[in-house]
Amino acid sequence: MGNVFLERIDALRSMMADNGWEAVVIGGSDPHCSEYPAPRWKQVEWLTGFTGEAGDVVVTADHVGLWTDSRYFIQALSQLEGTGAELHKTRVPDAVMIPEWLSGRVKVVAIDGLCQSVSAVEELESALGEGGLVVDVPDLLQELWDGRPQIPVTPVTTLDVECFGGVPRVDKISWLRKWMLINGYDKVFLSALDEIAWMLNVRGSDIDYNPLVISYLLVSQDYVKWFVKKADAVSDLDPDTEDSFNELKMDGVEVEDYDAVFFALSDFGSDDSSGRIFVDPSTLNSHIHKYISDCFPPESLCCGTSPVILEKAVKTPSEIEGLRQTYVDDGVAMECFLHWLETEVASGREVTEWEASEKLTSYRSGIPGYRGNSFENISAYGPGAALPHYSTPRIGSAVILPRGLYLVDSGGQYLTGTTDITRTVPMGECTSLEKEDYTLVLKGMIDLSMAVFPRGTAGCQLDALARMPLWKAKRNFGHGTGHGIGYYLCVHEGPQGIRQNFSPQAIIPGMVTSNEPGIYREGMHGVRHENIVLCREAGVNAFGDWLEFETLTCCHIDTSAVVKDLLGPEAVAWLNAYNERVYATLSPHLPSETAAWLRYKTLPI
Amino acid sequence: MGNVFLERIDALRSMMADNGWEAVVIGGSDPHCSEYPAPRWKQVEWLTGFTGEAGDVVVTADHVGLWTDSRYFIQALSQLEGTGAELHKTRVPDAVMIPEWLSGRVKVVAIDGLCQSVSAVEELESALGEGGLVVDVPDLLQELWDGRPQIPVTPVTTLDVECFGGVPRVDKISWLRKWMLINGYDKVFLSALDEIAWMLNVRGSDIDYNPLVISYLLVSQDYVKWFVKKADAVSDLDPDTEDSFNELKMDGVEVEDYDAVFFALSDFGSDDSSGRIFVDPSTLNSHIHKYISDCFPPESLCCGTSPVILEKAVKTPSEIEGLRQTYVDDGVAMECFLHWLETEVASGREVTEWEASEKLTSYRSGIPGYRGNSFENISAYGPGAALPHYSTPRIGSAVILPRGLYLVDSGGQYLTGTTDITRTVPMGECTSLEKEDYTLVLKGMIDLSMAVFPRGTAGCQLDALARMPLWKAKRNFGHGTGHGIGYYLCVHEGPQGIRQNFSPQAIIPGMVTSNEPGIYREGMHGVRHENIVLCREAGVNAFGDWLEFETLTCCHIDTSAVVKDLLGPEAVAWLNAYNERVYATLSPHLPSETAAWLRYKTLPI
Repeated sequence: MGNVFLERIDALRSMMADNGWEAVVIGGSDPHCSEYPAPRWKQVEWLTGFTGEAGDVVVTADHVGLWTDSRYFIQALSQLEGTGAELHKTRVPDAVMIPEWLSGRVKVVAIDGLCQSVSAVEELESALGEGGLVVDVPDLLQELWDGRPQIPVTPVTTLDVECFGGVPRVDKISWLRKWMLINGYDKVFLSALDEIAWMLNVRGSDIDYNPLVISYLLVSQDYVKWFVKKADAVSDLDPDTEDSFNELKMDGVEVEDYDAVFFALSDFGSDDSSGRIFVDPSTLNSHIHKYISDCFPPESLCCGTSPVILEKAVKTPSEIEGLRQTYVDDGVAMECFLHWLETEVASGREVTEWEASEKLTSYRSGIPGYRGNSFENISAYGPGAALPHYSTPRIGSAVILPRGLYLVDSGGQYLTGTTDITRTVPMGECTSLEKEDYTLVLKGMIDLSMAVFPRGTAGCQLDALARMPLWKAKRNFGHGTGHGIGYYLCVHEGPQGIRQNFSPQAIIPGMVTSNEPGIYREGMHGVRHENIVLCREAGVNAFGDWLEFETLTCCHIDTSAVVKDLLGPEAVAWLNAYNERVYATLSPHLPSETAAWLRYKTLPI
Repeated sequence: MGNVFLERIDALRSMMADNGWEAVVIGGSDPHCSEYPAPRWKQVEWLTGFTGEAGDVVVTADHVGLWTDSRYFIQALSQLEGTGAELHKTRVPDAVMIPEWLSGRVKVVAIDGLCQSVSAVEELESALGEGGLVVDVPDLLQELWDGRPQIPVTPVTTLDVECFGGVPRVDKISWLRKWMLINGYDKVFLSALDEIAWMLNVRGSDIDYNPLVISYLLVSQDYVKWFVKKADAVSDLDPDTEDSFNELKMDGVEVEDYDAVFFALSDFGSDDSSGRIFVDPSTLNSHIHKYISDCFPPESLCCGTSPVILEKAVKTPSEIEGLRQTYVDDGVAMECFLHWLETEVASGREVTEWEASEKLTSYRSGIPGYRGNSFENISAYGPGAALPHYSTPRIGSAVILPRGLYLVDSGGQYLTGTTDITRTVPMGECTSLEKEDYTLVLKGMIDLSMAVFPRGTAGCQLDALARMPLWKAKRNFGHGTGHGIGYYLCVHEGPQGIRQNFSPQAIIPGMVTSNEPGIYREGMHGVRHENIVLCREAGVNAFGDWLEFETLTCCHIDTSAVVKDLLGPEAVAWLNAYNERVYATLSPHLPSETAAWLRYKTLPI
């Protein structure tokens, strides 16, 4: 396999020589700064074979380097073998990032500006310093990449907010126009796909697991223009998409071709009455940013954080209703799966991680409103679970044995919400270290679940609650404790998070966030317990205005590996009450055998 | 009394009219941005009668306003009565601060630039906008203030670091010069009094409770110049000060007159080889900042955070040894006091808050190395304790009854460190609300005491630990949880803190910080438990580099008001172990009757 990548790298080097580029930087994202790109933009994978979800490549005349973080160190070393590419570790002490590495080595660097963020290119330009040059070549790899996938074209559907929760698109457009008026902007240009999908109440499947439509959106007081690939051949449209476009047009949304965005932006620039345009550089690609900068006088281009991010994160009452029901449905699928798994493994049958993963998906797909998984299932037994981002191989995945810990992290996309849940399942006898880790991580998750806090509290002020039981035993985990979750949208969304990183973003009533501490012991086992929590109001008194979490996730937590003394009485009481509630809520919806099993699994300890 | 202040305000208004000033802003600090100013700079008190520790006054032709925070709302309303001055609340939602209030109302504002920070004046100038003018009048009130106190002149002593811990001044100067070299500064100008005292290992008593010498310090690679009031009449020097000056001179420190600082700075400016001067605008007064700005080309004036703040905060091994002993000695005084108090009150004698405060000081003053209190004792019974900054009146203070809660917050200055301790003492029967509050606050203090955390953790990431037991009961307190403490220096020092406010400053091994959650119920009672904790290393393993707290404070915590179930088994175990350690450590040093009493008070619950 190494040869394919060596050939591609050689071809790129010829192109570099022809054009006088000393280095090429290939980023891992798409023109919309998406977390997960469609296959067309998996340029790092095409060039080097590396399939991790985060990685950037630099090619110079004598070096190929992949920059990625600790989640992918082992994978990168294995996948890069034979390509000559070297691993550059990020998020480690004294990490040398790409701009710093290039600084002093080269002066002329080519990038695909469509797939680089504004800030990444600014850092690069600043690092190259005087005499440095960043050459923006959109679709730089296009001519080398035979059979490069097209921009995906999947059916577009619209959401029935009456049935499935949320706010009509005309109301969202009115809200955005009011925000523009208040802040003195004449136009807003959105490029983040989940913001656009939320604004227009449209969904597609252009990206695996993310129900998004690749597109741009331009909103003024007079028009809404949606630039989307499907519009270039209206006669070929599938009926769903055609219906969706007609519905959008009825609401005043003009549907234009994806590539027409450039014309629209330049036309806008020449318009005397054009005024100020707002963009969010954190999700805008460098190519379009520079294009807009060229079209407009500098004072007209206004940068800031898109208001859609916060508005989208605070779920409406109807969305919250949808979520509560969705998490019950999702819990039914999870319990059926866990019952099946325990029965199969106990019976002595050899169940692999892959088979378990497929079984879980089959249970989930039976739920009304199911629209696919919200990310690739992590189904990992024993040492596999020690990799927080383990990818279960279709062939040759481990057999789940009737001892130790099995970890399953999964979620579904439903018309009424997005789910995400991790359960660590003791499959039989566990070592005392496994039990300790299981219990301490659980205590962290419960302590955070029980938090009450005054309005204005930020996630980084609560993060230590989930870590302290581990910290007291001098153990820790290297990922965030919690991320925001979309409503039939991306499983990871901002602006809130529960992490050690400083962020002033408060946790606001209506926000939905994961609560997922863990621990990972290479070569041994991994533990993660993940519930999804909704922030809600908890009353006002003389001491303040109080908020708390409501746990949406409805799936029992196995008590067999709990060390009761380590968990402590307060957390034990929470656990017993939680498991009782899970049984009471789910048992009417479960097959009788599963309900009986769940009764046993949820007995108080 | 109102008339005196009305007269003074009228006199100021005449001066304003004569000079064409539309407003005067009087700040509450001194030329060194000290937390507590000497009487000479209590300008707000002289003008309005307000004695709170934080307050700024604005006088216009038709308005007198005092800006202060919630600690002083009640006090301000009472002290301002009859002056016509109005209270402007700060640190409340929608607070209008002085610059915003003045903006649009006036254009010409006079200030005493010596007593205003650089940032305060910059905000004022920016708020006044175009056409606005800030007139800097050093010692603006001087001609109105008959009998204004002089700059204090108290004896200067030097520290014997061999005996009492710390680093010789020549080593500190070498360290600072190396820092200057690394960072490319030719001179450092220090104006914060505790930084200067620390650098030179000198102490004075120019400011109540703060063992400081009013002075400036200028350090270059070639000289160290200390500008201090005492030097203007060398023949009149007291013997201690003369000895101190001689010792300093032996170490290469030139002692110059306080006012000579202006000449030195201007002379420096004219020197061709002068190079770059470093100042910390957070502690530099506006007058000197503008003076330096006028003397130097703009590129020579470098602003940043003084390196002395962090270096001073991280105590050396010899200082830590000193502190451990000092907190034992201080604990002996505390236990003698608490034993006396309990006995007196139980015997039916009427002990007032003031008498108790005096008794505590008398016990403390018997400790070798005692150099005074580190702040004004807070001795408060019942409702008095509900004011976090209660000032015990000499005449008419409340009688401590044999029921409810008595709060005593106090500390000493010793040659081997500064102490600060709060104990809330159940004097007999307590209500269930008093017991609950007592227990929840205690649980917060204990939870924070037990924290283990990875290197790099900041105080704002730990703050919620101390609050969560209260938060879960929807209770809270309005002050920070912890502040840094000096070593025979100020009882409040930076840079670390344990607060909700975001600050990236990590808690570093060697830092000494208070741990003092509380709760305050107006008209009822107040609870605060305060121990002082030292951050120390707790080992390195595969999961990280671990830190923990060692409690320095050595004084039992009364268990009679503890609700054991509310405290929880982990905190109960901590409390029992702590009280046992206090007894074991202190009993050999206590009178036998007090030791026997302490044995009883420290029995496990």
